[in-house]
Amino acid sequence: MSTSVIILAAGKGTRMRSSLPKVLQPLAGCPLLGHVIETAKKLDAKNIITIYGHGGDLVQQAFTHENVQWVEQTEQLGTGHAVKVTLPVLPKNGISLILSGDVPCITQETLEKLLNVSRETGIGLVTLTLPDATGYGRIVRENGKIQAIVEHKDASSEQHKIKEINTGIYCVSNAKLHEWLPRLSNNNAQGEYYLTDIVAMAIADGLEVASVEPLMPFEVEGVNDRLQLAALEREYQADQAKKLMQQGVHLIDPTRFDLRGSLKVGQDVRIDINVIIEGDCELGNNVEIGAGCIIKNTKIASGTKVQPYSVFDNAVVGEDAQIGPFARLRPGAKLAAEVHIGNFVEVKNSSIGLGSKANHFTYLGDAEVGAGSNIGAGTITCNYDGANKFKTIIGDNAFIGSNSSLVAPVHIANGATVGAGSTITQDVAENSLAVERSKQFAKENYQRPQKIKK
Amino acid sequence: MSTSVIILAAGKGTRMRSSLPKVLQPLAGCPLLGHVIETAKKLDAKNIITIYGHGGDLVQQAFTHENVQWVEQTEQLGTGHAVKVTLPVLPKNGISLILSGDVPCITQETLEKLLNVSRETGIGLVTLTLPDATGYGRIVRENGKIQAIVEHKDASSEQHKIKEINTGIYCVSNAKLHEWLPRLSNNNAQGEYYLTDIVAMAIADGLEVASVEPLMPFEVEGVNDRLQLAALEREYQADQAKKLMQQGVHLIDPTRFDLRGSLKVGQDVRIDINVIIEGDCELGNNVEIGAGCIIKNTKIASGTKVQPYSVFDNAVVGEDAQIGPFARLRPGAKLAAEVHIGNFVEVKNSSIGLGSKANHFTYLGDAEVGAGSNIGAGTITCNYDGANKFKTIIGDNAFIGSNSSLVAPVHIANGATVGAGSTITQDVAENSLAVERSKQFAKENYQRPQKIKK
Amino acid sequence: MSTSVIILAAGKGTRMRSSLPKVLQPLAGCPLLGHVIETAKKLDAKNIITIYGHGGDLVQQAFTHENVQWVEQTEQLGTGHAVKVTLPVLPKNGISLILSGDVPCITQETLEKLLNVSRETGIGLVTLTLPDATGYGRIVRENGKIQAIVEHKDASSEQHKIKEINTGIYCVSNAKLHEWLPRLSNNNAQGEYYLTDIVAMAIADGLEVASVEPLMPFEVEGVNDRLQLAALEREYQADQAKKLMQQGVHLIDPTRFDLRGSLKVGQDVRIDINVIIEGDCELGNNVEIGAGCIIKNTKIASGTKVQPYSVFDNAVVGEDAQIGPFARLRPGAKLAAEVHIGNFVEVKNSSIGLGSKANHFTYLGDAEVGAGSNIGAGTITCNYDGANKFKTIIGDNAFIGSNSSLVAPVHIANGATVGAGSTITQDVAENSLAVERSKQFAKENYQRPQKIKK
Repeated sequence: MSTSVIILAAGKGTRMRSSLPKVLQPLAGCPLLGHVIETAKKLDAKNIITIYGHGGDLVQQAFTHENVQWVEQTEQLGTGHAVKVTLPVLPKNGISLILSGDVPCITQETLEKLLNVSRETGIGLVTLTLPDATGYGRIVRENGKIQAIVEHKDASSEQHKIKEINTGIYCVSNAKLHEWLPRLSNNNAQGEYYLTDIVAMAIADGLEVASVEPLMPFEVEGVNDRLQLAALEREYQADQAKKLMQQGVHLIDPTRFDLRGSLKVGQDVRIDINVIIEGDCELGNNVEIGAGCIIKNTKIASGTKVQPYSVFDNAVVGEDAQIGPFARLRPGAKLAAEVHIGNFVEVKNSSIGLGSKANHFTYLGDAEVGAGSNIGAGTITCNYDGANKFKTIIGDNAFIGSNSSLVAPVHIANGATVGAGSTITQDVAENSLAVERSKQFAKENYQRPQKIKK
Repeated sequence: MSTSVIILAAGKGTRMRSSLPKVLQPLAGCPLLGHVIETAKKLDAKNIITIYGHGGDLVQQAFTHENVQWVEQTEQLGTGHAVKVTLPVLPKNGISLILSGDVPCITQETLEKLLNVSRETGIGLVTLTLPDATGYGRIVRENGKIQAIVEHKDASSEQHKIKEINTGIYCVSNAKLHEWLPRLSNNNAQGEYYLTDIVAMAIADGLEVASVEPLMPFEVEGVNDRLQLAALEREYQADQAKKLMQQGVHLIDPTRFDLRGSLKVGQDVRIDINVIIEGDCELGNNVEIGAGCIIKNTKIASGTKVQPYSVFDNAVVGEDAQIGPFARLRPGAKLAAEVHIGNFVEVKNSSIGLGSKANHFTYLGDAEVGAGSNIGAGTITCNYDGANKFKTIIGDNAFIGSNSSLVAPVHIANGATVGAGSTITQDVAENSLAVERSKQFAKENYQRPQKIKK
Repeated sequence: MSTSVIILAAGKGTRMRSSLPKVLQPLAGCPLLGHVIETAKKLDAKNIITIYGHGGDLVQQAFTHENVQWVEQTEQLGTGHAVKVTLPVLPKNGISLILSGDVPCITQETLEKLLNVSRETGIGLVTLTLPDATGYGRIVRENGKIQAIVEHKDASSEQHKIKEINTGIYCVSNAKLHEWLPRLSNNNAQGEYYLTDIVAMAIADGLEVASVEPLMPFEVEGVNDRLQLAALEREYQADQAKKLMQQGVHLIDPTRFDLRGSLKVGQDVRIDINVIIEGDCELGNNVEIGAGCIIKNTKIASGTKVQPYSVFDNAVVGEDAQIGPFARLRPGAKLAAEVHIGNFVEVKNSSIGLGSKANHFTYLGDAEVGAGSNIGAGTITCNYDGANKFKTIIGDNAFIGSNSSLVAPVHIANGATVGAGSTITQDVAENSLAVERSKQFAKENYQRPQKIKK
């Protein structure tokens, strides 16, 4: 039986007070809807049908890379109406999970359990047992079987004591959706078509309504305002931190760790406080990430130590490198093993060979540095002439004196030495010394300008 | 009926273990007493009378800019005595709020409610209902009316069950203060004059004692030691974070956000973890502040993105600028729209024109940079001769090569180019190239000093 | 009666998922076992006997500097067996504390109380009363006296209600250990020798089993996985933060403070968010440490202000200095009073005299700077020739122009001035000016490369 996923993503989210449609608000760096689509993809859904409304163009643009079928809900007439507009594209057979674009943390595991129990019955839902269920729609059961979903305002005082609630996540056979949705009525106070009503139809049809509970309550939390978004962000991050610790990562403070993407880790990875991991990252065995580092789309090989406040973006770092503090690796930085990059050093679109060092105040842009070279403090590759970018090639075992300017395109060959303070505009041959410098001039008894004593 | 505010600020605060008087300890960057004075000012109080004692000179010096009447309490003989010393300057008519300089978070809203209810009765107080009131003075009521305030040690076991407590914040008609305070007695174990006793006098006089509860319990929390100060700081910060989120700010982690002053925000402002906002700041629409930024007295226009670990102080930033990471804007930095300031760049007392860029390792001090100019990596304005500061003027569309030193006063005209590594001491004319450089010298087969193999 | 300390440190700690033996996992920067050894040393223990097993070589190597007696447990046959292997080296007289290498936070105070009560009875243990004791071994008492320790699985439903548990920390007379341990049996489901069984032996011998409870529950928390390690780290840090606040330190956020070592403080020290203190540090009166600073093995004298994101390691800072933001003091940095070190400045193995300043982008390595000197922005001491390090000596009241390179060994004498952008290779005499610079060359109507409009 093939699975479809229907995602309700038409809401405006007025309480977010944002110009962005609610489902585009980011959680852990990814739009709310993106989380739901990612989960849907893991389920091998045959089709992912997303119902858009407010800000639909923006929403679709954000997911052009995803194989998603878009259905517009032009008027917001309730959840039942939203799902109904998908009927023209919904297969007649198979089964559908109905998810919300603003309930981003539902897991593959919970949905697979829901699919399993619903395939038998034709309808199932995710319920949650809360310590205090005030305000929520209650699950009324008799002999364990679901009899009804009663909204809080319609519930009897006896029903108010029920702690199991409806989360709004359903799994229904497509045949039943095609049968039931056209029969939904908006004959209620709000004048809306409620998806919940299909549960009553199922029961009226004599079907048993299956249910599952999520492993973690935050899986079914929705986001309606910034406070809920922030609260869910912390729950999501805490769960990610827990999973990494279970894999053996030493997180010094799990409440001060943010993962906005995916992180693969080796053994004995240590991550200090306030680190942010973004995009897809990998950290090898024994990698240490110092406090306050921000690592994005970067792969760091085993044994490398990154000192505090280093910022990496789309970089690759070899084994046993030493980096930071205050190092910046920008896109295209490729560091071989045992490279040392020190404080206030920026590397962009450059490769640095085995064991080479740039320990202080250096800008390496569009450079290729060989192995065993030493780049002195304050060295700058002048890679830009105001219009074009050029390459700086530095060979193996070169020594670039401090405060040098290497005007690209330029080639410093193997074993070459550049004298401190030189501006190098011509290639430097192998094992030669290049210096650009004037004679040092001295003036005795020089009277420096003096501060006027006040 | 005119309002006076009387603030008790004479306590030493021994448990703070500080050389500073307690009311000068900062909460969110502002002295405890400063918070109370700010709130008093919002109430349009006719006079703000502050009772000082310990460290009175320091306290007064800290508030010379405020229109506050200072009254000295030479001996610490209790709260009742403290208020009594204000009688010579307290108007005969009107009503007074009696606040504590170490209860900084009381809000305008709560005090206005207290004023409203107290104007009718002549006396009112702020009470608080606690889950566990052990140790506090209890509010004894009969048929809802306050009958007495009973200290914990004097309370019956029945009274110990009372959960409503006295917070020590009062509102009393000045006429009554003039009548009651001289009648206070110190005939008690501590030999102190207690302000609380006026409640008994009011009841004895047949007055009804009005009361209000604060919206948030932390409004009435006092500070006696560093632990309480730290706890209150977090409650205060949490409340500020909540209010910003309600305005639509996307705070990635509200528990890792500090606002020490005021923040005006546009729509869709995003603030990452561990940001500190100090003084008076404004952030326009869609402004993004990266992790760990510290922004003080700065206005940032719409669309600007600030990358992590940027530190701003008294700066102005235009629209759609890109700044950081590791950028430092010092006082007087004025950045026009679309300016790019990159990593390890410091700007002080300088204006930078539309779309100009200084992307790496640059110090711009006392400079004026026009529009569309590019300041190369490692450029330094040499603005100081050891005694005086001078200006560097750079025109529009100029290009300053990397590692250049611009010795001020100097003028680089529109369209001019400076060669990399140059020390520029003379003005550079429009559209001209200036270079200060020697001939590159090469020595072949240069034998660099070698490390002795151990 | 002399005291021995026996530490069980043979466990592998499989659930840590680490290549490191569990007792070497760090808490607050120090191995778990290191905490226990430190506490043992404070007790003036005559001998500290540590039982090792898994990773024993690594464990011993980590503590070669400690006066610890190592005993190998070749097979892991239970806690009783572990202690039994110490008998050959355990004195016949005296008393022993039996601690766990993975219960790092037990305090000297609790152990001294345990020693006191156990000296009278010959046996005592640390117990803990928990709200929910499920899973733990219960302390069965009659008339207040310990009758038995019953494992959870062996307990009656009545015993399941007992909230006092065995923590596994014992104090036993050596004579009794020599008597009891050889009699332990492994006749149980696990086939292990349980140390707990000595309690039954003591009771059978008619001894009273003494007990104490720890002041803080986390003292007896063990570490079995990364989650427990992280949780204990936060409890340990919270306790350290509390103690510092009680001493009068103003911690802006005690939950964002990490002390990994020891910190001595003067009066009115203020520490902003996310500061990490490592090793042994001292902060004088009125020292302020800005947000995100990382201070290791450093002494900072009174009145000094450190701005955010400064990283110090093995440095000494004098009074009333101003440092940061983004300053890096590396080992051997010695700053006299009133020194200013500004943003993006690195100091290594250098002394800086009274009131000297290096405010921007400077590398001072292997330098001696006198008093009252000004080091311009971008100055670099070229201390390394690729093989050797050399010294740069700068006298008093010198002025080093911006972007200068000082090629060591070199001596800039008192009162000397170096022109901006100079590479200084020869000594500069007192009160003289040294400049290394070419003539500035101008080319009019220079056509800079232009971007091709797309």
